[in-house]
Amino acid sequence: MTRVAFLGPSGTFTELAATQVANASSAELVPFHTVLTALDAVRTGEVDTAVVAFENSVEGSVPISLDGLATGEPLVIVAEIVIPVSFALLVRPGTTLGGINTVAAHSHAEPQCRLWLRENLPHAVFEPAASNADAAREVEQGRWDAALAGAFAAERYHLEVLADGIHDVEGAQTRFVAVRRPEAPPAATGADKTTLVLFPQHDHPGGLLEILTEFAMRGINLVRLESRPTGVGLGQYCFSVDAEGHVGDERMGEALTGLRRVCADVRYLGSYPKADGGASTIRRGVADDDFADARAWLARIRQGEPS
Amino acid sequence: MTRVAFLGPSGTFTELAATQVANASSAELVPFHTVLTALDAVRTGEVDTAVVAFENSVEGSVPISLDGLATGEPLVIVAEIVIPVSFALLVRPGTTLGGINTVAAHSHAEPQCRLWLRENLPHAVFEPAASNADAAREVEQGRWDAALAGAFAAERYHLEVLADGIHDVEGAQTRFVAVRRPEAPPAATGADKTTLVLFPQHDHPGGLLEILTEFAMRGINLVRLESRPTGVGLGQYCFSVDAEGHVGDERMGEALTGLRRVCADVRYLGSYPKADGGASTIRRGVADDDFADARAWLARIRQGEPS
Amino acid sequence: MTRVAFLGPSGTFTELAATQVANASSAELVPFHTVLTALDAVRTGEVDTAVVAFENSVEGSVPISLDGLATGEPLVIVAEIVIPVSFALLVRPGTTLGGINTVAAHSHAEPQCRLWLRENLPHAVFEPAASNADAAREVEQGRWDAALAGAFAAERYHLEVLADGIHDVEGAQTRFVAVRRPEAPPAATGADKTTLVLFPQHDHPGGLLEILTEFAMRGINLVRLESRPTGVGLGQYCFSVDAEGHVGDERMGEALTGLRRVCADVRYLGSYPKADGGASTIRRGVADDDFADARAWLARIRQGEPS
Amino acid sequence: MTRVAFLGPSGTFTELAATQVANASSAELVPFHTVLTALDAVRTGEVDTAVVAFENSVEGSVPISLDGLATGEPLVIVAEIVIPVSFALLVRPGTTLGGINTVAAHSHAEPQCRLWLRENLPHAVFEPAASNADAAREVEQGRWDAALAGAFAAERYHLEVLADGIHDVEGAQTRFVAVRRPEAPPAATGADKTTLVLFPQHDHPGGLLEILTEFAMRGINLVRLESRPTGVGLGQYCFSVDAEGHVGDERMGEALTGLRRVCADVRYLGSYPKADGGASTIRRGVADDDFADARAWLARIRQGEPS
Repeated sequence: MTRVAFLGPSGTFTELAATQVANASSAELVPFHTVLTALDAVRTGEVDTAVVAFENSVEGSVPISLDGLATGEPLVIVAEIVIPVSFALLVRPGTTLGGINTVAAHSHAEPQCRLWLRENLPHAVFEPAASNADAAREVEQGRWDAALAGAFAAERYHLEVLADGIHDVEGAQTRFVAVRRPEAPPAATGADKTTLVLFPQHDHPGGLLEILTEFAMRGINLVRLESRPTGVGLGQYCFSVDAEGHVGDERMGEALTGLRRVCADVRYLGSYPKADGGASTIRRGVADDDFADARAWLARIRQGEPS
Repeated sequence: MTRVAFLGPSGTFTELAATQVANASSAELVPFHTVLTALDAVRTGEVDTAVVAFENSVEGSVPISLDGLATGEPLVIVAEIVIPVSFALLVRPGTTLGGINTVAAHSHAEPQCRLWLRENLPHAVFEPAASNADAAREVEQGRWDAALAGAFAAERYHLEVLADGIHDVEGAQTRFVAVRRPEAPPAATGADKTTLVLFPQHDHPGGLLEILTEFAMRGINLVRLESRPTGVGLGQYCFSVDAEGHVGDERMGEALTGLRRVCADVRYLGSYPKADGGASTIRRGVADDDFADARAWLARIRQGEPS
Repeated sequence: MTRVAFLGPSGTFTELAATQVANASSAELVPFHTVLTALDAVRTGEVDTAVVAFENSVEGSVPISLDGLATGEPLVIVAEIVIPVSFALLVRPGTTLGGINTVAAHSHAEPQCRLWLRENLPHAVFEPAASNADAAREVEQGRWDAALAGAFAAERYHLEVLADGIHDVEGAQTRFVAVRRPEAPPAATGADKTTLVLFPQHDHPGGLLEILTEFAMRGINLVRLESRPTGVGLGQYCFSVDAEGHVGDERMGEALTGLRRVCADVRYLGSYPKADGGASTIRRGVADDDFADARAWLARIRQGEPS
Repeated sequence: MTRVAFLGPSGTFTELAATQVANASSAELVPFHTVLTALDAVRTGEVDTAVVAFENSVEGSVPISLDGLATGEPLVIVAEIVIPVSFALLVRPGTTLGGINTVAAHSHAEPQCRLWLRENLPHAVFEPAASNADAAREVEQGRWDAALAGAFAAERYHLEVLADGIHDVEGAQTRFVAVRRPEAPPAATGADKTTLVLFPQHDHPGGLLEILTEFAMRGINLVRLESRPTGVGLGQYCFSVDAEGHVGDERMGEALTGLRRVCADVRYLGSYPKADGGASTIRRGVADDDFADARAWLARIRQGEPS
């Protein structure tokens, strides 16, 4: 049976995302206490797949996931899952708003509920927890008065939903990715993404401009670009990017070899279908056929045939 | 007397940074529980200046600071302070390594000490706190066994330094910024930085390439570029950037007006001396004199004089 | 009375163009034997204006005009005139096709009538002349059997039109320019052109790319680009360009100062209305108002006002 | 025996260039009256090779050669020959400067000797001829008083050299090319040139910028760029370019396929050794090995192997 790691304990949004991965119905979900231990469990073979949060439309990228995939033994993303995020305020049965002095949650939850907290619980202190579900567990244990978590976590920890649908920003979403040990990518669908980590040459101020040009020239749209420190010192960054298209596409293949040549290093993190199914726009001149025609023409002129 | 806000309580790295701001010796340092309340205290006039962490060479940017400056009433950065970061393990007197089951700190501290913790305290659980000093305070109160914080925080909370110089990455640094209500920038020094938040046009795939070109064409080096979600939805970003040069420089002025024209919005966050004092390289054609000469030439040809 | 120089003798296309210059009805047209002597006559003040051929849609640019304007005392273009070009075969009365062994014309005329000559006069030899009208004059004198010239030249030289409407390419046109000593340009009409000669830095391989970027970034369309040798050696070029827009436009002004800064030299050759009257497209962000707004914003932030 | 066409009659600079083509000693040189008939003689197989003037460091490109190669049945350049150009004033024995009223030469010769003529023969009239050697022949026949041609033409036409070393610009050179029917290019030498004609998409204002970027991104230096009218109308151009490198180089191959994809049409006109032997500079990341490495890496990640 397939084993899928997720950030536990039971009741996290990550667990919800993990259940949506293909064939999850027949999978065994295995909770891990941190993102890094979940990723390492894939590397060692203890599990087949790990599902980790990658970015949130309000709070931004999840650094621990970006860095965990950018370093260490290679892994590849095989799927993305996007989940609308809104929180419930979970309390022990009988607790009222007036009785809440402490509210616990993962530190990513607080910025998404800040206005609500200011209005409804102006005097409560926020307490960071390892995960939202952990916060709920600690409320059950009596450490805190309330937790912000998915409403679906209430039953698991014998809590009540005192308020639901909490979110400062309408339409907030979190994007999760499923990662595995290196394997051939899922077949191209015409609506795919490729994730990369690009390390510019250190001695090269225009490195990012050069990188963007490699994509732009082949009509490849970038849908995410995050800089991350390489750890060497302030001002030393790598770039985590999502590009529209599949590693098997001609235009993506040529862009990848171009990046490989101009960057100090490129880490390929997989091609996979876009969660929203939106097909890539392919502008004139960059379809697979255009590349094939141009290559055939080049072969002819190299051999001295009339072009 | 000048009042300077910092992320408290007493004993944080931010407090250390705040003491290094110009004229801090005569300033009153005022602790705040969160970055956002510190920034708002500047906006309301409750304090004159706030010092907040902006980025770390290992952990990356501090989203709450970036977002807090990118939105709300305008503020400007007037100085940056870079502090080498290494942690001490603080315990109540008498505690030994073997007796430590929980280690508390700000969530930014954990990734910087992960290897050390794995080797020296493999079974201890990490507990996130609102600040490192808060963690120390909670150790004093008996909630946790140990805190990761600056060694300078030990005395304040009657703790002992069980280990010092803890950092996974040699040379780790945190960069803090001092912000004030809008005011004329400090005089240009030749070694300055300008911080901006750039909002690309939504309907414009090549927006970032265009933005980078505005800088590159005037020989302006970008030393930091962070994307941040605008909150509207996945795939909608703004860019927080640091550019070398001063708002009063001709080349920076023209780049700024160019950005203002091509972006949906530009938020100017101040020009201030670089902490490392490294002078900007000014390539041929972009010195102030080159702009002045070119403008004089344009005036001549517009009036019909021989160029 | 205004004196206008043209490439003579009487009966050239240039003379026809000269009659179309504003106020030409009251002007005295003065023939010159070469383009260079016509230009020099403007420089010395012997005439007020010179009209010279600049480019042809079949034969390309007229090097002597490009070079004559790119060097020597400065002149500016104040108007352009576009004339449809088709040739007549002029002969002494009584000559038939069968009796034509030599056909004279300016060397620019031959390529435009090559197919016609091959079909209709396959055995005739082409003889280059100083101008088409000169060729007609030489036919009158009996030196050659026929001339290719405008039909309007027949009467002047007592010749007959044996064939008319001769042109290999349908719709061929020649563009002439009227030049004067430096003076303020004609008022902007919204459908203007600016002509420049750009000398890239010698030690700079990407010079042309940089030049094009200065235009592209401000949404300025280039409608002509010619390289010309600088005379220093093979591989050393300058570029003669026509850009859409007026020197008084904000976007053109900024592009010009940018070019002045990055080029070794820029020679401004005037702004003037387009002959076809086609208004320039002004994309988002580069209208005069956009520049004015951006400059006002820059002034505010430099003074410390909220942006 | 190899037959080589040149612009005759005997005594032209082109003939001199033709003798310098490889194996010319055993070749039969065949004069043609025009560049176009020489090119067509290669196309029909009447000759094996044609040598034609391509550009001059003072007078610029030779439009008839550019256009003759850009259209019609394909031909390829297999060699270039660069010849220093200075002229002799050829006269019938006994003629003195004072007796010269007419000076004949090809129209490309006059601009290169203009200052000399103005100083030494201010009253002589210039008469254009089909070639410099033709001018000499016509002097022999008594039509003109003097011809500007290579001194080596004097003997052939029984003329005297009245002055030698005539050239307004020190170091003037003319570049000739040897063309053949399509065949595999000469082997790469590391100091090669590739000649192309590029037709941008009509509906695409940034076409030239896009074209230059295809070269720049692969570190390919352009050493010549000429625009030529396509004949369709004013403002419709194609570009004749020389790029450093060989069609067999990886970077040139990828640039060519890129141009083929973005242009409306690309005409390949051959790769051949540079006359000056100056090796191309190959910047980091664009050597053949870099391309091979990148392609091998792409193959690995496409198959799911760790990169």
